[in-house]
Order: sequence, then structure tokens, then C-alpha cells
Amino acid sequence: MMEIRVGILGLGTVGLGVARMLIEQQSLMAKRLGKKLVLVAAADRNLERDFGLDLSGVRLTDDAHDVVTADDVDLVVELIGGYEPARSLVTTAMQHGKHVVTANKALIAKHGEELLPLAAANHVALAFEAAVAGGIPCLKSLREGVAANNIESIYGILNGTCNFILSKMEDEGADYADVLKEAQALGYAEADPTFDVEGIDTAHKLSILASMAYGSHIKFDEVFTEGISKISAADIEAVAELGYRIKLLGIAKPHRGKDGDKVEMRVHPTLVPLSSQIAQVADSYNAVMISGDFVEHTVSIGRGAGERPTASAVMADIMDIARVTPGGLQFMAPAMGYMPDERQDLATLDMSDVQSEYYLRLQVQDESGVIAAVTSILADHRISLEAMQQKERNTEQTVPVIMLTYRTTEGNLQAAISRIVALSAVEDDVLILRKESFAT
Amino acid sequence: MMEIRVGILGLGTVGLGVARMLIEQQSLMAKRLGKKLVLVAAADRNLERDFGLDLSGVRLTDDAHDVVTADDVDLVVELIGGYEPARSLVTTAMQHGKHVVTANKALIAKHGEELLPLAAANHVALAFEAAVAGGIPCLKSLREGVAANNIESIYGILNGTCNFILSKMEDEGADYADVLKEAQALGYAEADPTFDVEGIDTAHKLSILASMAYGSHIKFDEVFTEGISKISAADIEAVAELGYRIKLLGIAKPHRGKDGDKVEMRVHPTLVPLSSQIAQVADSYNAVMISGDFVEHTVSIGRGAGERPTASAVMADIMDIARVTPGGLQFMAPAMGYMPDERQDLATLDMSDVQSEYYLRLQVQDESGVIAAVTSILADHRISLEAMQQKERNTEQTVPVIMLTYRTTEGNLQAAISRIVALSAVEDDVLILRKESFAT
Repeated sequence: MMEIRVGILGLGTVGLGVARMLIEQQSLMAKRLGKKLVLVAAADRNLERDFGLDLSGVRLTDDAHDVVTADDVDLVVELIGGYEPARSLVTTAMQHGKHVVTANKALIAKHGEELLPLAAANHVALAFEAAVAGGIPCLKSLREGVAANNIESIYGILNGTCNFILSKMEDEGADYADVLKEAQALGYAEADPTFDVEGIDTAHKLSILASMAYGSHIKFDEVFTEGISKISAADIEAVAELGYRIKLLGIAKPHRGKDGDKVEMRVHPTLVPLSSQIAQVADSYNAVMISGDFVEHTVSIGRGAGERPTASAVMADIMDIARVTPGGLQFMAPAMGYMPDERQDLATLDMSDVQSEYYLRLQVQDESGVIAAVTSILADHRISLEAMQQKERNTEQTVPVIMLTYRTTEGNLQAAISRIVALSAVEDDVLILRKESFAT
Repeated sequence: MMEIRVGILGLGTVGLGVARMLIEQQSLMAKRLGKKLVLVAAADRNLERDFGLDLSGVRLTDDAHDVVTADDVDLVVELIGGYEPARSLVTTAMQHGKHVVTANKALIAKHGEELLPLAAANHVALAFEAAVAGGIPCLKSLREGVAANNIESIYGILNGTCNFILSKMEDEGADYADVLKEAQALGYAEADPTFDVEGIDTAHKLSILASMAYGSHIKFDEVFTEGISKISAADIEAVAELGYRIKLLGIAKPHRGKDGDKVEMRVHPTLVPLSSQIAQVADSYNAVMISGDFVEHTVSIGRGAGERPTASAVMADIMDIARVTPGGLQFMAPAMGYMPDERQDLATLDMSDVQSEYYLRLQVQDESGVIAAVTSILADHRISLEAMQQKERNTEQTVPVIMLTYRTTEGNLQAAISRIVALSAVEDDVLILRKESFAT
């Protein structure tokens, strides 16, 4: 039976998961593939530890360069993460005629447009299913499963850390800072959680999904990105009473305007109806909701991270590549879903032109006329209110007032807010959350 | 640009959807595929009607044989349904060197094992994504996305008609017969609904999923199949109070026993926890939950039927085949997920050996000692009760008693029930529903 020889860069959690699968599932995969996948080499900085796995027969090295240039490696799995040295190693591997599979969303979101042509030029495959929502084969579904559809929207819960924190905050009525500490203690959040909780990780993943859906190179630094660190237990309770739950969503939609086609791209905490499928996705689970003009709505839910689910996605890519090796590379679906010369450069819709409904939390002095002044400004901007709540009464200090608006543009809403906070009875610190409706 | 020429058999709902996609999405698909898909011919018994679609340029015929033998057709889409003439036409098409895409679950479940080798012998592809849960690319996910996993279980809501009826019964507190009439009036159920409501359609689809997951030829007539026609509004209300909802599920699991590997295959109304993802799947939506030893749990939700979602799945198959045409057929994932010579013939686990928890509805005389007699029989069979409810009191006629049991085998449960109904104070007509727990 033909063998495809695999080298792994990085024996961290996911790297060991991939090594485990290559060893434990070899016979199962051979039955499905007709070829044998063999782990021949692995690189890691620290080899002096117990891997919890029998790696005898695998060449271990602390020099990743050895693996990406080795004559006996057909396919390199990059699991180091981050931009460098991952980018250089992937480049060298491809220049040495090796296929590359990676779980590195930052690398693909930032350097994908440079790496994909390099793969083509070197007649190798570059695959990255594990970079987005590990346990959900969402890139394959988007690229192949709904390939005949115009994609009308993508909504994703793409960061397990944020979803875990928001779920815990709701379950325990606890505030953000306390739950973050708990998540850090459990290993669900990093010591420096910025990347996750500020939405950057979600923006990386959303950029990859949208690039594939719209045949465009989406620059992730143009994605409007807002994290979850300003959400309080009180907000979660207040939105629940109104029939909503807060999820950190990545949202992408096409936008056809007077000045041409653009893509709406945003990551922010979002009010979703309690009855929606996406509201039910709890703990560290991820979800991807794709709507197309023919398929209608599909929601896929699964683990977004972790050794085993991410390894499963890496292995699916390895099997897809092994299937066309040798001689069939040109028969694979294009990595970004469109033929390379059919891709275009769509502009990102300016956030001020994005339409949404809004949840507003204002701190106001509890005196007559304040609410009237606020609603009068909203009316000036033609912003209609769906609901308004002022629960506390307190003449000594400001009290929270919650408002739900109907649809308006972000620019118009922000203009109204800047006038509202100029009122002497309203504090500057207004929490603005966006709200979405779903067909399911 | 290279052209792949398509012929359609059957211009019903789905056939017209496929024709519409081939016409309206041609340019989008070409950008993703690098090839042009062209609708050249279509066969339908009744051509004297308004198709609501401009089919000029398409050769229309009332003789399907013309399409499957035509020189200018590369790929035939079979959307006639049923066993014959679909089977003969598909056979002829493949013998004439044409690839075949079908949405016909009955055909694949019953004749797939004969048609797949025929496809191989004629060097053509046979694909059937649309046969299972139309809007969910679940066959592709199972065959390719989680291909490196041992599949631990499959749970599917695979029939939109049943899910629509059960959802309506709950929403409206209405009984089965009334909701069925409503579903028939709305076109959600056929005039003769047997195929759907008795679980046969679900068994077809489950057989295809399990054949792919376990590399075995599953005979759908060995699948234990029970429909939803015995469920009453009172049952739905009673299970809701206990924290459950009733869904018609197809369930497949591997079973390793003393007498070798088998597959557990069953279709029946099932109590699922209200908090589970699968319980949230309402109306005519379908869902497929796949658990694997590495990927853990994935749930995909989408439309199971309808012109547009089913056409989307057919088109995904067409694009997969077009991508490898010409010259790349051997690089496609094997249609049934395993290399043909690695497939085996696993026996179906006898239903009496299947383990489950149970919901029982007994009609008993409201007199002292009856419950004691029933529970004593259950204790004899080592069946423990999780809950028991007798709400009504009536000395004139029998009253319903509801019991939830802990896990036991079907054989043991049935033995206990046959002793229970032999009690003079218990009516013969016991409703037995099975109950499943989920990790998510």
C-alpha cells in the first residue's frame, strides 16, 4: 500500500493529538483512503518530556528546519502557531515540494494571500480546515457543500474562550473579571487573554470564512472588532428579560451599494433571540451559521478547539491531500473556494454604513425630563425604540436605563449617542450592543 | 472554458430547482469550478405546463431514455424517485458512460450496493448527497470531514414531515390526526403519509449514513422502525413536564459483542432532553448529530427538503464530479466513505439486545395495589424507575400512569411489559417510547 509520510512541527496539545491519530487510527484511515499515512518526523523545542504517547520510530528533532527540508517527508503539519517562524517554515516546506496542513488562523488570515500562490507555484497543497472552528468541517462545507450558492450571510461563534466566559457569566450571574479568572485557572483562557476576549481571534477566523464565501481577499485588520470585556452580569440579566442572550459573533454579509460591491465584516458581542439555534450554543462550543440563496439556513455546532477535535480537522485535510497524491492535485477544490484568477478585492463596508438594531445602556440622573430629552434626540435621528427600561430609582446617583432600538445605521446611531452624552444628566459611558434576528 | 453537459430526469419541484440553479448560478459556479455547467436536456412526463423558468435552449423530452443515452450529456441527474424506472434509467446512464447524481434515498438504500460497483465498472461517478438531509452537507462531512474518526454514534432528525407534525402538536396542543390533516393541506405531508410518518423514509436515510460510517452494507429492512402515529398530545405534554421533547430519531451505533461487531440501527419516536441541541430543531428542519472518538460531538441543522435546499445538494455533487472531469475520477473520496474492498457485512444488532431508557404510558384501574403489582414486576426484571406519575383519579374508568425507567435491554423491558399487561387491572395498550441522553 502506498505511503504518505508526515512530519509535524510543534508537539503541543494539537501536535500530540495529530501524532496520536496518525498512530492509533492508521488502519481505519487506510481503509477509507487506500493509502497508509505514516508519521516519520516531528520537531519540538522541548524533547525532554513525557509525551504520553509511544513515538519510537518517529525521528524527533528540536530543529524544525530539518523536518521541512527532509527528503522522507511528503507533507508537513505546522502547529507552532503565530506569524514567525511559522511563515518561514511553511514557505521552506512548500519550496521543498512538501504539502502543508496548518491550524494557524493568524498565519492564513495575514499571509494566506502570499502563501497560496506559493503553494500553486510549487505544485503542493496548502490546507487549513483546523484554523476555523476545529471540530466543525465548516471550510469544506462552505467551499464544497454550498458551493453553488450565493452566500447571504455568515454568523459564527468562533472563539470558545469567549463563549465559555459568556455562558458562565449567565449561569452564575458572575461578572466578567471573576469568570475570566476561573477560565484562566481551568486553562480555557490564556494568561494574557487579549487575543481571544477582544475578538481578534474571531476576526482572523471570520476573514478566512468571508474570503472563501465572497471570493475576495478580506483584510482582517479592516474587520470591525469589539470584545466582551465591557459586558456585565447586569447586561446579561437585562437582555435575558428582553428575550435575548449575548454571544460574541463574527458576522459577514455581502453589500451591494451605489459605490460597488463590498463586504460587511464585524466582530462584536451581539444580542441573539433566546429561541434561536445559535443562542443554544453554550460553553466552549463553536457554531457556524451559513445562509445561501438556495440552501437557506444551515447551522453547524461542534468543538472549536482542544487536542482531539482540532487534530480531527487536521487529519481530514491530510486525508484530502493524500487522496490526490500523487498526480491529482489539480482536481482538488481550490483552497479559497474560487479559482485563483476569479478572486477579486472587495472593499470592506465602512462600519458607519452598517445597519443594525441596538441595545443601549445609559447611566442617567433620575430626574424628570431626562428620558424625554434622550428620546427626543433619538427621534431627531429617526431612531425608533422597541423597548425602554428604567428599573432603579435613586435621586442620589445615576441609574441605568436600557433601550432597544429598531434598525438604523451605525453612523446615525453614533451621531445620536454623541448628542445624548452631551446632555448634563447622562454619563459619557454608554454601552452599545448590536442585535441580530435569525430565521432559525 | 470547458463545459460539463447535464441532463435532468424529472422536472418536479427539485428538478426545476436544479434547472434553475444551472441557469441562474452558472457564472458563480464557473468562478468556483473553472468549468461551465450547461443544462442541455430534461425529461418529464408532462411537458405541457408552465415551468416558471425559461428553458429555451434546453432539449425537452417526455422520454427519459433519450436523455440517459444522449451523446451530448455528460452527467445525468435522476430526480424521478422510487425504485423503477429510476433504477433502470440510472443503470443505462452509467452503461452509457454518464455520471449520475441522484436525490433518491430509496434507490440508494435498496440498490446502492448493486449500483456502486456498476459505476466503478463504467468509470463514472454516482453521488447522492441530496438523498439525506438535503440542506445539510452531511454525507460529505461524514465521508471527508470526520474521515479520521471512529464514529461512536449518529442521531438524525431526517424526516421534515414528522418533525413538522411533532412541532405543531406541541405548539398547538393538538393531536396527531388533526396536525396530519393540516400538514397535508399545506403540502408538508403526502396524501398517503405512511412512508414518512411510519419512519420508512428515515430508515432509508439512516441506512445510507450508517453504511458510510461503518464501512458496511446496512440493509434498511433490518432497521427497527416505529413511526409517530401513536403519539398523543397528552404524551407530548407529559414528557415536557419531565424535561423532554419527542423527536423521531434515526439512531446508529457500533456494537462490539461476544459474537462479533454489529451495528445498532433503529428509528423511533425518542425522548430527548429539552436542553439538548437536537430538541431545539423545530418545524421541517433536519439535524444530524455525529460523534467521533476525536472530533467529539458535531450537530448540523438545515432544511431537509424543498426545491431550493435539495437542488443545492444536487449541485454540490455535480460540482464535485465536474471538478475531477475528465481524468480525475480516481481522486474522489469513495462514495461510501471506505475503499470498496475494505467494506464488510456487519450484522444488525437484534432489537432485543438494544439498551435504552424508557417512557411507559399504561392505562390502569385506579385501585390500590395496582401500582405495587406493576413496580414489583419491573423489580423482578431489575428495571429501576427514574420517575412515576399518576395525575388523574377516576374509579369509573382506567387512568394513565406514566413511568420513566433507567437503562435496560429492550428484550428485558418487553418481557416485563408482557407480564404487566397480563394483570387484570392493566389495559393491553401500553405506549413504549425510548429515551436518549446527549453530551450536548
